[in-house]
Amino acid sequence: MHRSIATVSLSGTLPEKLEAIAAAGFDGVEIFENDLLYYAGSPRDVRKMCADLGIAITLFQPFRDFEGCRRDRLQRNLDRAERKFDLMQELGTDLVLVCSNVAADSLGDEEILVDDLRLLGERAGARGLRIGYEALAWGRHVNTYQQVWNLVRQVDHSAVGVIFDSFHTLSLKGDPAAIADIPGNKIFFVQMADAPVLAMDVLEWSRHFRCFPGQGEFDLPGFLAPIIRTGYTGPLSLEIFNDGFRAAPPRANAVDGLRSLLYLEEKTRQLLAADTQAPNLDLLFDTPPASRYHGVEFLEFAVDEAAGAKLSGWLERLGFAKAGEHRSKDVSLLRQGDINIVLNAEPYSFAHGFFEAHGPSLCATALKVKDGATALQRAIDYRGHPYRGLVGPNEREIPAMRAPDGSLIYLVDQAEAGETIYDSDFKLDPAAVPTGSLQRIDHMALALPAESLDSWVLFYKSLLDFEADDEVVLPDPYGLVKSRALRSRCSSVRLPLNISENRNTAIAHALSSYRGSGVHHIAFSCEDIFKEVERAKEAGVPLLDIPLNYYDDLAARFDFDDEFLSELAYYNVLYDRDAQGGELFHVYTEAFEERFFFEIIQRKNGYVGYGAANVAVRLAAMAKARSGSVRQAKL
Amino acid sequence: MHRSIATVSLSGTLPEKLEAIAAAGFDGVEIFENDLLYYAGSPRDVRKMCADLGIAITLFQPFRDFEGCRRDRLQRNLDRAERKFDLMQELGTDLVLVCSNVAADSLGDEEILVDDLRLLGERAGARGLRIGYEALAWGRHVNTYQQVWNLVRQVDHSAVGVIFDSFHTLSLKGDPAAIADIPGNKIFFVQMADAPVLAMDVLEWSRHFRCFPGQGEFDLPGFLAPIIRTGYTGPLSLEIFNDGFRAAPPRANAVDGLRSLLYLEEKTRQLLAADTQAPNLDLLFDTPPASRYHGVEFLEFAVDEAAGAKLSGWLERLGFAKAGEHRSKDVSLLRQGDINIVLNAEPYSFAHGFFEAHGPSLCATALKVKDGATALQRAIDYRGHPYRGLVGPNEREIPAMRAPDGSLIYLVDQAEAGETIYDSDFKLDPAAVPTGSLQRIDHMALALPAESLDSWVLFYKSLLDFEADDEVVLPDPYGLVKSRALRSRCSSVRLPLNISENRNTAIAHALSSYRGSGVHHIAFSCEDIFKEVERAKEAGVPLLDIPLNYYDDLAARFDFDDEFLSELAYYNVLYDRDAQGGELFHVYTEAFEERFFFEIIQRKNGYVGYGAANVAVRLAAMAKARSGSVRQAKL
Repeated sequence: MHRSIATVSLSGTLPEKLEAIAAAGFDGVEIFENDLLYYAGSPRDVRKMCADLGIAITLFQPFRDFEGCRRDRLQRNLDRAERKFDLMQELGTDLVLVCSNVAADSLGDEEILVDDLRLLGERAGARGLRIGYEALAWGRHVNTYQQVWNLVRQVDHSAVGVIFDSFHTLSLKGDPAAIADIPGNKIFFVQMADAPVLAMDVLEWSRHFRCFPGQGEFDLPGFLAPIIRTGYTGPLSLEIFNDGFRAAPPRANAVDGLRSLLYLEEKTRQLLAADTQAPNLDLLFDTPPASRYHGVEFLEFAVDEAAGAKLSGWLERLGFAKAGEHRSKDVSLLRQGDINIVLNAEPYSFAHGFFEAHGPSLCATALKVKDGATALQRAIDYRGHPYRGLVGPNEREIPAMRAPDGSLIYLVDQAEAGETIYDSDFKLDPAAVPTGSLQRIDHMALALPAESLDSWVLFYKSLLDFEADDEVVLPDPYGLVKSRALRSRCSSVRLPLNISENRNTAIAHALSSYRGSGVHHIAFSCEDIFKEVERAKEAGVPLLDIPLNYYDDLAARFDFDDEFLSELAYYNVLYDRDAQGGELFHVYTEAFEERFFFEIIQRKNGYVGYGAANVAVRLAAMAKARSGSVRQAKL
Repeated sequence: MHRSIATVSLSGTLPEKLEAIAAAGFDGVEIFENDLLYYAGSPRDVRKMCADLGIAITLFQPFRDFEGCRRDRLQRNLDRAERKFDLMQELGTDLVLVCSNVAADSLGDEEILVDDLRLLGERAGARGLRIGYEALAWGRHVNTYQQVWNLVRQVDHSAVGVIFDSFHTLSLKGDPAAIADIPGNKIFFVQMADAPVLAMDVLEWSRHFRCFPGQGEFDLPGFLAPIIRTGYTGPLSLEIFNDGFRAAPPRANAVDGLRSLLYLEEKTRQLLAADTQAPNLDLLFDTPPASRYHGVEFLEFAVDEAAGAKLSGWLERLGFAKAGEHRSKDVSLLRQGDINIVLNAEPYSFAHGFFEAHGPSLCATALKVKDGATALQRAIDYRGHPYRGLVGPNEREIPAMRAPDGSLIYLVDQAEAGETIYDSDFKLDPAAVPTGSLQRIDHMALALPAESLDSWVLFYKSLLDFEADDEVVLPDPYGLVKSRALRSRCSSVRLPLNISENRNTAIAHALSSYRGSGVHHIAFSCEDIFKEVERAKEAGVPLLDIPLNYYDDLAARFDFDDEFLSELAYYNVLYDRDAQGGELFHVYTEAFEERFFFEIIQRKNGYVGYGAANVAVRLAAMAKARSGSVRQAKL
C-alpha cells in the first residue's frame, strides 16, 4: 500500500517534518493546514521540497464547517474554498479533506447537506480537484461514516468521495461492517489512528491521546479489512494527534509510524488470509511469521573487573554456580536451574562500550527461538537493526538485533541435540554446582524514559510479535510509576516496562544512574519460596526490609494464622492473591549499585500478574533504603 | 476552624509528610492507611511523632467495602474492622472513614445497609470510637450524601455520623441544599477538594485531578456554607489525589494547602455575611478585603551595565524616554504614556542578587493600590512573605511582598495629589520626551515551571484576590504550551501564566535561560497600531517575521481588501476577531537575549482575550528565529 502520514503527527517545523517522513520511508504526506500557515516559504516551495524528498502530497486538510453552514455564509465559504483550491494547486495535490460541520448553528437537513457538498464538488471538479468528506465523531449533525456515505452517494459526483478515519468510528464504538456497501473507488482516503480506550470527552481524547496502530487498544485490522475488501488501493495514512508526539524527535517517531503501518498491514493480511475473494492482498506488507519464543537463554551484563566481581558475588550468594570462563574473552558464566548469566568484562567489545556509556548494566538478552535466521529476517523487514559482533574461533555466531535502547537481543536456535552455545564458547567447570534451586527467569522489568514507552511496545509487538498487557499506575512515595508488561505468546518471556514522569521515583533514579534506560529488576522463579529465601538470607543476600504494618494489614485481609504471618514477615515475603485463587509469594533484594535488584518469586495456582498490589510497599521500602544509603554516604 | 489534611495529598515518606503538615500550620492530619502500611515504625511511633509535632490525628481512612457486603463475608469484615480499631487506638484517633461499598456483588437493600452500619457503629462505640460514613461518587448503591444521611439517620447511633467530601457531590453535579436537613452534630468530618471540570470517568478524575480549593472550578464556598449553617465546628480537611502533588516538594505544597483553606474560609464567610443566623462565623478566617488594583505602576528589571544599556536601547527604539536617574543608586527610569520601566544595576541590592541568579530579568512589579499597608497585611495573613529593602535618604518606603519565584511585588499607594515616587526617588529630566505613543501595560506573560502553575494561581487568587481565566492549550512546534491568565478585578492588571511540559518549546527555553521562572513578554497598548509599528520599524525595533501564508489564510477567513492585508503583512501585524466583533491587532518583537520580548497591542470593540488564535504562528516564528540565531552563533 501507499504509506502516508499527516504533518500534524510529528514535532518540528515543516521542513523537519518532511525530512523525517521521507527518511522513514513513507510514500506520501498529508499537509495539515496549520503547518503550512506557520511556514515561511510558499506552497510552491513546499511542493518542491516534497518532490526533492520523493514524497507525494496525498492530501490537504482540513476544510472545516462547510456543509449545512448558515445560508448567509455559504457564498463566503465557497470563496474560502476557492482560495484553498488555489493553494492546493500550488501545492500540487488534488484532494482536500472536508470534515463534518461542528458549528452549533449549522443545518442538518439532508437535502441541504447534499446540495452543499455537490456545489463544492462541482467547484473542485471544475479545477480537476476532489473533495473527501469525513465524519468527525463530534460533528454537529454528521458523525458516522454511514451518514457520510449516504450523503456522498446522493451527491453522486465523481469529485466527491468518502474519507475514513478509524478513530472517529471506533471511538464511538461504531461497527465497520457497513463499509462493505461502499464501492472502493468512492473511498478517496483512509486515515488509521489507534488510541487507548479512555472514558472521556471524545474531542479531548482525539486531540491528545491518539497513537500509532498497535500502540493503543482499537481493533484496527478489523477496521481496515473491510476497506481492503472494497478494492481500495489508495494511501493508508496516519493522522495522530498526540501530546507526546508533538514533542518527540521527529525522525525516530516517523520510523515508529511506518513500522506501525507495516504491523497493521501484517495483521490485516492475516485476518483476510482465509478470504479467497479479498483483492489486493499482495499490496499488504508481508514478512515471516514470528518465531515461537521459549524463554530466556541467557542474560549478559556489561561489567568491569570490580563490578563483575561484585555482581558475581551477589549471584553466588543467590545460589548460582560459577560454571565457566569464555574460551577467548574476559567473560564468565554463572548458572542455576535454567538460568544462565554472562558477565562480560572484555575490553574493545560491544559490552565494553555499553559499560562505558551506562556503567554496570544488562547489555544483551538472549531469547530461545525455533529459527533465529527467520526471526532476524522478520526484524529486518520491520526496519529493525541487525547486529554482527566479532566471533572468535570455535564460537558460534548468533543472530542478533538492537533493542530500542541499543542493547542487544540475541536469537538463539534451540538445537535439537548436540552441543550448546555454552559448550562451544566456554570452558565449563563440571564440578561447579549451584547452591540454590532457582529455576528460570520469570520476568525482567525495564526502566525507560517516560516518552519512549509507546515506541518500545510497538517494537516488541511488531518485530517479535509480543502481546502487551494493560497499563497499570502505581504509587512511588515521590510520584507515580506506570507499568505495561509485554509477553511473548505463551508468556515464556515477560517484560514489564516501567516509566515515571517524576524526578525522584525509583524509576527516575535508575534512569539517571544508567544515563538511559536499563534493567530495573530480574525475577527468578522457584518452587519453595521459604527454602530459597532462608538459604539466600543465610548466604548474606541483602533483602529489602518490608514494614511490619504491611503484615498487620495482610492479617486483616486474609485468613492467615499468626505463625504463617510471622514467617512471611521474618523473611520479608510479600503476598498477593487474585480473584481466581492464584497466589504470589515474592521477595526483593536491595539494589545493586542503585541500578537494579533481584526478585525471588513463587507462583501458585496459575497466578499470572506481577504483584501490582505490593509494588507500592516495595517502592516505599526502596525509597527508604535509598535515603538510608544517602545517609550512609554522607557519614 | 480546625484545619487538617490527608497524608495522601502530599509527596514523600510518612515522616516527611507529617513534618511538612506541621510546618505549614495545620492543626491535624488524616492518616491514609497506605501511608501507615508503608512506614517502618509502629502506629504508636506515628502517634508520638504527631504529638511531638503538635498535630492531631483527625481521621483514619479509608475502611472499604463493608456495608451490604456478601453475607458470607460479613463476619470476616467485622474481624477486619476490629483489627483496624486496634490500630486506631494505637494511633490515638477515634474516627474512621467508611466509604460506600463499590463491590459489584454488594447488596443495596436499605435495611441491610442500615443493619450493617449499626453493627459496625456498635462495635466502634463499645471501644469509644466513631465511624463516619461517606458516599463515593462511584459507590455501587450509595453515591450521594442524601443516601448517606438517610441511612445514618435510620441507624440512629451516637457512634455513626456523616462524612462529606465536596468532590463526591460536586463531581456528580449534586445540590448541596439538602445539607441543611442534617444536624451539625451528625456531621463527623468534612473533606474539601476542588477540581477542574473534566468530561471523564469520575473515578479517574477523582484519583488524578483533584486540587486544592481555589485551584479548580468547583463552587466550594457554596458547598461549605450550608455545612457551617448546620453548626458544624469540626475539622476542614483536604483530601487531594493529584498526580502532580504526589511528586511536588511536600513543604511548599502543604503551605499551598493551608492557604487554600484560608481562601475557602474567607469566601465562605463573605457568602454567609448577609445571613445573621449563621453560627460560628468567627471561626472562619478573616483578613482585610483585597485592595482595588489600578494597573501597573512600574516594572523593574535587574540588569548589569551591559544588559542595562542594551535594554535601554531597545526601550528607546520602542519610543520610551530616558526620564531620569535615581538619586542615590545606579538605577534609571524610562517612561512613555503611563508606562514606567526601571532598570536597576545597583550593586549589593536585591536586584543585583536577582541578576546574579537569573541574568537580565524582571525582578519587581509595582502595582497601583488604594492602600498599600492593608494590602500587605492581607498578604501576610495569607502566609505571604513581606519584603523590606534598604531605603535611601529622600526615598519612599514601599510595602512589598515576595512573588512565588522570589521576585517582588510592590504595592504603591495612589496618592491623592502631591509628589510621586518618581519625584521623591529620581532626578527627573524635564526635557525628556517619549518618541512613541504607547499607553500602558496591557499584560505581562510569565514563563513558569509546569508543576508550579497551580501554586501561582492560588497565590494571586488569595493574596491579591485576582481571578483566573480557563486554561488554554496552544501548540508550539516542539510541544504544547498551556496558558492560564490571571486578572485583577476590573482587569487593570493581567498576567497570562505559561507553562510547558516539553523540553524544546519557547517556554522551556525561557525557563532554562532564566534558571527558573521569568517574564516571557510584556504587551504595551496603543491607539493606532500601524502608526506605532511604523515608528518602531523605522527606529530599528527587530519585529518578529510572520509568514505570508498566515495572511493568505486571513484573506480566506475575513473580508479584508488586498491593500489592508498587505499592510498587515508588511508590518507583521497579527489579527483576531471574537464572536462579539471585538478585534485585536498585535505585533511582537524578537526576543531580548532569548528571554523575553515585547508586544504592541491594540484592542478594538472590547476584545478581552490575548490573541490565542495567533499564538501558534507566533511560537512557530519564534522557533524559526531561535534556530536562525543558533545558525548565526554557529557561523
